[in-house]
Amino acid sequence: MKYIAMFAAAALTAGTAWAQPPAACKPSSLNIPGAPYPCVMPDRTAMFRVNAPAAQKVQVSAGGRVDMTKKEDGLWYATTPPLVEGFHYYTINIDGASVSDPATRTYFGGGLWSSAIEVPAADAEFYAHKDVPHGVVREQEYFSTVTQQWRRAMVYTPPGYDANAKVRYPVLYLLHGWGENEVGWTYQGHVDQIMDNLIATNKAKPMVIVMDNLNAAKPGEDASIYNARSVLTQAVPVPPPAPGATPAPRGMPRMSNTFTEMMVADLIPMVEKNYRTAPGRENRAMAGLSMGGFQTLNTGLTNLDKFAYLAGFSGNCGSLGASFDPKTSCSGAFADPAAFNKKVKLLYISTGSVEGPRVKQFSDALQTAGVNNVYFESPGTAHEWLTWRRSFQDFAPRLFR
Amino acid sequence: MKYIAMFAAAALTAGTAWAQPPAACKPSSLNIPGAPYPCVMPDRTAMFRVNAPAAQKVQVSAGGRVDMTKKEDGLWYATTPPLVEGFHYYTINIDGASVSDPATRTYFGGGLWSSAIEVPAADAEFYAHKDVPHGVVREQEYFSTVTQQWRRAMVYTPPGYDANAKVRYPVLYLLHGWGENEVGWTYQGHVDQIMDNLIATNKAKPMVIVMDNLNAAKPGEDASIYNARSVLTQAVPVPPPAPGATPAPRGMPRMSNTFTEMMVADLIPMVEKNYRTAPGRENRAMAGLSMGGFQTLNTGLTNLDKFAYLAGFSGNCGSLGASFDPKTSCSGAFADPAAFNKKVKLLYISTGSVEGPRVKQFSDALQTAGVNNVYFESPGTAHEWLTWRRSFQDFAPRLFR
Repeated sequence: MKYIAMFAAAALTAGTAWAQPPAACKPSSLNIPGAPYPCVMPDRTAMFRVNAPAAQKVQVSAGGRVDMTKKEDGLWYATTPPLVEGFHYYTINIDGASVSDPATRTYFGGGLWSSAIEVPAADAEFYAHKDVPHGVVREQEYFSTVTQQWRRAMVYTPPGYDANAKVRYPVLYLLHGWGENEVGWTYQGHVDQIMDNLIATNKAKPMVIVMDNLNAAKPGEDASIYNARSVLTQAVPVPPPAPGATPAPRGMPRMSNTFTEMMVADLIPMVEKNYRTAPGRENRAMAGLSMGGFQTLNTGLTNLDKFAYLAGFSGNCGSLGASFDPKTSCSGAFADPAAFNKKVKLLYISTGSVEGPRVKQFSDALQTAGVNNVYFESPGTAHEWLTWRRSFQDFAPRLFR
Repeated sequence: MKYIAMFAAAALTAGTAWAQPPAACKPSSLNIPGAPYPCVMPDRTAMFRVNAPAAQKVQVSAGGRVDMTKKEDGLWYATTPPLVEGFHYYTINIDGASVSDPATRTYFGGGLWSSAIEVPAADAEFYAHKDVPHGVVREQEYFSTVTQQWRRAMVYTPPGYDANAKVRYPVLYLLHGWGENEVGWTYQGHVDQIMDNLIATNKAKPMVIVMDNLNAAKPGEDASIYNARSVLTQAVPVPPPAPGATPAPRGMPRMSNTFTEMMVADLIPMVEKNYRTAPGRENRAMAGLSMGGFQTLNTGLTNLDKFAYLAGFSGNCGSLGASFDPKTSCSGAFADPAAFNKKVKLLYISTGSVEGPRVKQFSDALQTAGVNNVYFESPGTAHEWLTWRRSFQDFAPRLFR
């Protein structure tokens, strides 16, 4: 029986005198139970350990690639330069094989289940699990008539949802980024803790948050943009673009309108049938990060009869940057600023201060053209989850006012 | 921005002519989106592929260790002997490093997030996701006064739970095995699909299923039995047993009564406060697999005022096997067979036909002693999830009658 072998082996290795990390090096909160590595020092350098007895070369890629060194105890060790605070995916490279670290829980990022490390942030309190009333996250399955498949959405219901059977709640539809999935916002983003904390301090209105998966393809439709990382690791041939198809904007996969079609035909009706939601566009918001921000604008700007609040975290309609033209870009949705400002209660745009100028350029161009938008910048962070946790924390209190 | 690098890399490798698997080799249902390997042939042999350019030796451990071979395309390939049908954890060994396969979703087993493969079973229909009404699985957080920590239980509510606001439901408390956690029964076990299918065909009564985590330790209490695999990979020192402590039965970690204390003081009251449960022992059942079966008997046999239905799948009170004495073993809970039979509506015991005689010996000894119990055997399976899926499917219809 498996656990017998496990315990026998455990007993055998238990006596070995493998080095323990310095007391000051705190195990990452994402480690599996009992794993002392990876750990983070007060100066935000991180220490990693890998058990690869016969390997010739071992590296860790966490904010840059660092060679690991084999020590007397036969294990490989490395200490990184100081890392940016927050959540980071990382990989171990063993003789050319890029794999996850068995010492951590895995998170779906870059199209696969990746190891990750959490570097405590100075402002970590806002996403910490506190002794406050907690909402519940539900795995909600539903059938899509558009994709002809069963899908799963994660649905956050706020504290008191079950007890207050008469109350109806506004709904935020919240999307992950490229290579992630419907659990990104709860597992990586701690959106449930952030929301619980905002509600407990009366900073945000209680709301239902629906987190679906960007991956929506009709039967026969090319879905390879959603699993590009498996292209890297598994060499799935990438079909050539269809004749005459518009090439994708730099760094951004071409998007189909299937997600929008699925959301309008299947997701929203399912949510409003199964959850006590308040009716109408003024009780509906949509937001997303990176590719999910792109999708939010794709979907939201063409369905302003359904949404009064829109947000793109580290995302705009197509990474256009300086080439963005308010008159024509984004399907001309901003061509009439006065009409747009009247219709949309909040257009929210955010980015990390060190992830490049594009999103700021997008916000500035809109402002110059007279399109109202709220711009937020996460200090010192790049295209990563602390940027999006902070964006959400700043964004959510502005909803449904 | 991360996805830019990803797509650039994807574009570079997209043209390479890496071999695709034979058409007859169906990708495992547990693969990440788009991954063609691992795949399963009609004869249940499985084909694996690993990208480890500079490795000297690569092996896959899936029902035995198989050497992989590097082919012209620079990737490592292996085909296993025919595998037993069902769900299997597996690992890739790269120059001595035991890691998960980046091509699959990861599952918490053996104390870490492991790759896994699903070999379609002849009777797979019973745990398949079908076009029937589906229940919802909720992540329910709660604070334990016993462990002084926040905990998470996964709670299955049956189809119609939210709509039928007047109905109260019986509750099954269902435990995972050693080295697994509270998501094992849904992720590996498909218990939600099995239950949805049983309810849709009126074979089982709608019930709430509460899946908690075996790991329950008070502040300062040794919890290393719950993370023994991290001992293997991370060399966490194992504390010596306390002076005079009873040595653990072979192959079974010593268990504390902390889980029982936590369940009675915290878990059951939380469930009955937050969910519409029917009152009394005749509406409560407890079951578990392997170490969770051991825990179920530990907890249930000493709390028969709270449970009328008990089950151990591949587990009994301490892997006693032939040395089991109905008069004295299991704290003497079976000393008075007549009283026990009168009190307990169902004692259910199951095992896989090829995982060893212990559980059958336990059931037989009870029967001989006059203790009623229902025994079930999963044909051809060992100490693995298909055994437990089948056990659940046979067990659930017997509850709350």
